[in-house]
Amino acid sequence: MENTELWLPTLITKTPQDGFELAIKLSRMGVKSTQPNVEILKKLRPVYSEDANGLLASSQIVALNFQTISAANNYWR
Amino acid sequence: MENTELWLPTLITKTPQDGFELAIKLSRMGVKSTQPNVEILKKLRPVYSEDANGLLASSQIVALNFQTISAANNYWR
Amino acid sequence: MENTELWLPTLITKTPQDGFELAIKLSRMGVKSTQPNVEILKKLRPVYSEDANGLLASSQIVALNFQTISAANNYWR
Amino acid sequence: MENTELWLPTLITKTPQDGFELAIKLSRMGVKSTQPNVEILKKLRPVYSEDANGLLASSQIVALNFQTISAANNYWR
Amino acid sequence: MENTELWLPTLITKTPQDGFELAIKLSRMGVKSTQPNVEILKKLRPVYSEDANGLLASSQIVALNFQTISAANNYWR
Amino acid sequence: MENTELWLPTLITKTPQDGFELAIKLSRMGVKSTQPNVEILKKLRPVYSEDANGLLASSQIVALNFQTISAANNYWR
Repeated sequence: MENTELWLPTLITKTPQDGFELAIKLSRMGVKSTQPNVEILKKLRPVYSEDANGLLASSQIVALNFQTISAANNYWR
Repeated sequence: MENTELWLPTLITKTPQDGFELAIKLSRMGVKSTQPNVEILKKLRPVYSEDANGLLASSQIVALNFQTISAANNYWR
Repeated sequence: MENTELWLPTLITKTPQDGFELAIKLSRMGVKSTQPNVEILKKLRPVYSEDANGLLASSQIVALNFQTISAANNYWR
Repeated sequence: MENTELWLPTLITKTPQDGFELAIKLSRMGVKSTQPNVEILKKLRPVYSEDANGLLASSQIVALNFQTISAANNYWR
Repeated sequence: MENTELWLPTLITKTPQDGFELAIKLSRMGVKSTQPNVEILKKLRPVYSEDANGLLASSQIVALNFQTISAANNYWR
Repeated sequence: MENTELWLPTLITKTPQDGFELAIKLSRMGVKSTQPNVEILKKLRPVYSEDANGLLASSQIVALNFQTISAANNYWR
């Protein structure tokens, strides 16, 4: 990632739902860091969101990142 | 997710079975957040539930989320 | 799951082998909860058990659920 | 599994290598429990071992089970 | 890996974002160690970054490595 | 594995990089134990290293094994 902007200062969130949103953000950044070209990304976007298998693969990445964030937050117990 | 409704206040559930139901809910929300358009989601739905591979991929996401929720609940020991 | 029957009262089992059986049960319930229609499930069944890729995907879900159950049981140490 | 034979009395092994062997055994039992018919299993066997994708999927299940067994053994530290 | 250069002295990073960058690096090294031939890698590169399924598979590996690095850093709590 | 040779005496390594190398070795042994026939393995080898999807699947297994080894080494903190 050439991006030097600060976008992930912490994994700690106030609520599980905020943590879930962060998991979605992490998943998007993972894709973006592998393919930084915005034009190509735009072209591929429909596969993630309009193709069932791509959508399921995206959701699996969200689930993995939510595992990380939930543990980081000590599961908001 | 543009959705600002509170749908995930906690990962803590009373029983393992309630935790399993929450894992299913999380899995659905993961898909929904990647494709918020309800019309497109409806069109893709049969793939998750009537195509064997899609169904297995969905079940794998449920298993990942159940890992998270079970740990959050200290495995209901 | 419309099912209100109690089928998962605990993740605690007496032996690792009982835990493995529970992992298999969890995997089946995950599929069932995504596709509650028994007729459709029956039609898809051969894919999980007679198609090599479907069988491997099913086995992977069992492995994920066995991770959860093993940790819940403190690995039966 | 109709099998009532005791095949998994413990996850504890003497060495990491024994644990790796047990992970392989668990992976096989997971497949076997999903498809108990030995004739069908025999027919599918080449897919796991002679098809590259099937072989990689099998190896992934071994890796997941080795995670479980390694943690159970407190990583043989 | 024939590479004897030191490229992974530690999993500890200052911030979650640095950890995410390291997860990306680890993912690349995993691919590189499986296929050390730079010419072949170059030829395959477009699949990871311009094919939606390859891109999602790459992102999943990043998510797995980020789990490892986050835990190593005690989740930067 | 008919192999009785000692190849995995410990999961403990001196550095994260050594641990990464061990993760690669474990991944190879997982494949080898599923298909012990060296001739068939040789024939399949190009799929792992010259086919993008096979290469990504291999890398995912490395990532899973690196999770195990990193935890075993208490993340080399």
